[in-house]
Amino acid sequence: MFSGYPDELVKDLSERWGRVQACVREAGADALIISSNVNLLYLSGRIFMGQLYLPAEGAPWFFVRRPCGLAGPNVVEIRKPEQLAERLAEAGLPQPRRVLLEGDELGHSDFLRLAAVFAGAEASNGSSLLRRCRAVKTPYEVRVMRMTGARHADVVSRFATVYEPGMTDQAWAVELFGLMLRAGNLGLFRVAGGSMEAFMGTVLAGDNGGAVSPYDFALGGAGLHPSLPVGQCGVRLAPGMAVMADIAGNFYGYLTDCTRTYGIGPLPPEAVRAHQVSIEIQRAVAQAGVPGAGGEALYSLALGMAERAGLAGCFMGGAQKARFVGHGTGLVINELPVLGARSKDVLEEGMCIAVEPKFVIPGVGAVGVEDTYVVTSSGMVSLTPCDGALVTL
Amino acid sequence: MFSGYPDELVKDLSERWGRVQACVREAGADALIISSNVNLLYLSGRIFMGQLYLPAEGAPWFFVRRPCGLAGPNVVEIRKPEQLAERLAEAGLPQPRRVLLEGDELGHSDFLRLAAVFAGAEASNGSSLLRRCRAVKTPYEVRVMRMTGARHADVVSRFATVYEPGMTDQAWAVELFGLMLRAGNLGLFRVAGGSMEAFMGTVLAGDNGGAVSPYDFALGGAGLHPSLPVGQCGVRLAPGMAVMADIAGNFYGYLTDCTRTYGIGPLPPEAVRAHQVSIEIQRAVAQAGVPGAGGEALYSLALGMAERAGLAGCFMGGAQKARFVGHGTGLVINELPVLGARSKDVLEEGMCIAVEPKFVIPGVGAVGVEDTYVVTSSGMVSLTPCDGALVTL
Repeated sequence: MFSGYPDELVKDLSERWGRVQACVREAGADALIISSNVNLLYLSGRIFMGQLYLPAEGAPWFFVRRPCGLAGPNVVEIRKPEQLAERLAEAGLPQPRRVLLEGDELGHSDFLRLAAVFAGAEASNGSSLLRRCRAVKTPYEVRVMRMTGARHADVVSRFATVYEPGMTDQAWAVELFGLMLRAGNLGLFRVAGGSMEAFMGTVLAGDNGGAVSPYDFALGGAGLHPSLPVGQCGVRLAPGMAVMADIAGNFYGYLTDCTRTYGIGPLPPEAVRAHQVSIEIQRAVAQAGVPGAGGEALYSLALGMAERAGLAGCFMGGAQKARFVGHGTGLVINELPVLGARSKDVLEEGMCIAVEPKFVIPGVGAVGVEDTYVVTSSGMVSLTPCDGALVTL
Repeated sequence: MFSGYPDELVKDLSERWGRVQACVREAGADALIISSNVNLLYLSGRIFMGQLYLPAEGAPWFFVRRPCGLAGPNVVEIRKPEQLAERLAEAGLPQPRRVLLEGDELGHSDFLRLAAVFAGAEASNGSSLLRRCRAVKTPYEVRVMRMTGARHADVVSRFATVYEPGMTDQAWAVELFGLMLRAGNLGLFRVAGGSMEAFMGTVLAGDNGGAVSPYDFALGGAGLHPSLPVGQCGVRLAPGMAVMADIAGNFYGYLTDCTRTYGIGPLPPEAVRAHQVSIEIQRAVAQAGVPGAGGEALYSLALGMAERAGLAGCFMGGAQKARFVGHGTGLVINELPVLGARSKDVLEEGMCIAVEPKFVIPGVGAVGVEDTYVVTSSGMVSLTPCDGALVTL
């Protein structure tokens, strides 16, 4: 383990190892080998280039290629992953016969290379096991999520202060990014899935709120260029437009998600009402989001409320609709669980979930709210406490 | 092909297909299937979710899951990659028997899924073939790189205007990011390799210039948090510090790289001299960088000049050194070729290469310059024209 960590982090990492090791044993494997940044961060508390070797029982080993100079118990320098076999032997550990590798995160060629390190060993995919473990935050992680959400919400509550009439969506977005960064946001937007990407978040104004995107986010936006077709499109903010600001909070490596909606002057009654329905759906989902609640049931609850409000046609998109109303968040913006159609996920205490009922009103724009919650025994508690009312700019 | 593209882009994409198809035939394959954003952008001019199917001969096909509504010749909507087989059959195309997939970019599980689409077909790794093709820019791509570099250099030339005494490295970096974004930089920093990541770039002040990082960039920096150990570390800019600003330019999906160095007040003579040596090395590498020059030879040229200046010990890092002095850039910041130790790459006309001889002066910081060049018949020509002299703040 790397030296210099505070005691509470050391203790928490032990808890994470224990949870993951229980799953490794359940999968009948001898060890799990981690190479991806996100899972290294989860299981070692930092990013390094190399492998974390977690046997089914006992302490993990840290095989570090870069940076030089990292030290601590079970920390071993290597030049290449092929050295894992001999280094384990030198440490007196048995060679694993069945290993779990990150089949979703590792490139195919990296997977094959790592699978060949232990002669004759059988390699399987451990990615979904890790995703399921990461979905349920430890007490330490919940504290980090809570601190993140508080800082995030504080910045969001100041978004209106940097608006100036006549701005484009991009000009306002740049000011919002600046507010976030000056408040300590690290900027990086980590997302699972090879084809998902975005800059720090999106500001969707007017009909760009319903623009279709290749990415699997709740709403898309056309983006500024075909090389990054998501987010603001360069339109000038004009009276009657709804503008939705959805920028992630990343102050300590964990992401919170929070969206607020603004009107450039007064918005039409249907948009104001849809925004209110979004707030009501979010509240209902948060109340119903107790341990044991199903991801699909929570989505159905949200969809049913949208239907009864006569707003199903513009719920979660226009021409292209997201089939979810919420998603886990943490080290990546799209953790488990999914609150969506056909989701088999079941809520557990400690899950952190962004709930984002959104509507796209043609000719006006996207309205609604998004907040990040932690699941407690009595339902979801918001981690991003700031006023969700529609703000008139 | 997607409708609505300008003629010159359509023509250029045809040239790219032709180059890649020649390599596909040389590899003895029937088709190449693309799923990753970067290669989709390269071969289709935009990002979509789905697959581009490039047969060894004839026009490519575009199988689109998202966004809805994309249209044009050979554009086919799908719900899942398994439909490729039947859609090709419907189009009267033969089923491929040997396919190339993106073995480096695709996750292992995605690779296996795609490899199983065509019953009995043999799947190999086409990633390096694509990387080699992408390394040599088409005339259209060179124009985009040139436009990118010009806009990039224009912003860099204004970096000093947003400096204020007493700032931290991060405070200045945020102002620089803001300048970039307001000038139209899209922000996204695309990089190849699953474990490489950074925000828009780095500002390395004082001894943070020599801080070791897990990432394989020329210099690292400790970063603000263990979850992103690269870049500025929060130090206050103080007299006598060298500060190196290295922020990517991404205005049209192609990245240029440019680094400039600043002194907080006058710097010691050894730092001033090392900066001058960096400029001389860069000039020598650019002159020697004609078609046919080897990546290793150019690195040796640079290293030799550093040695003769008595600066080998602080060339390209301190405790941890990069073993390269330049790298291709384009759709990702780390394209081929590599100008480095053991590189077998050979320069060709149209390659775009960032040359970044840098020195880390203990107690002062990192000094040096970086510019992006295009290889022409008579050597490298800078795409990021702005004064490289050390700037005293």
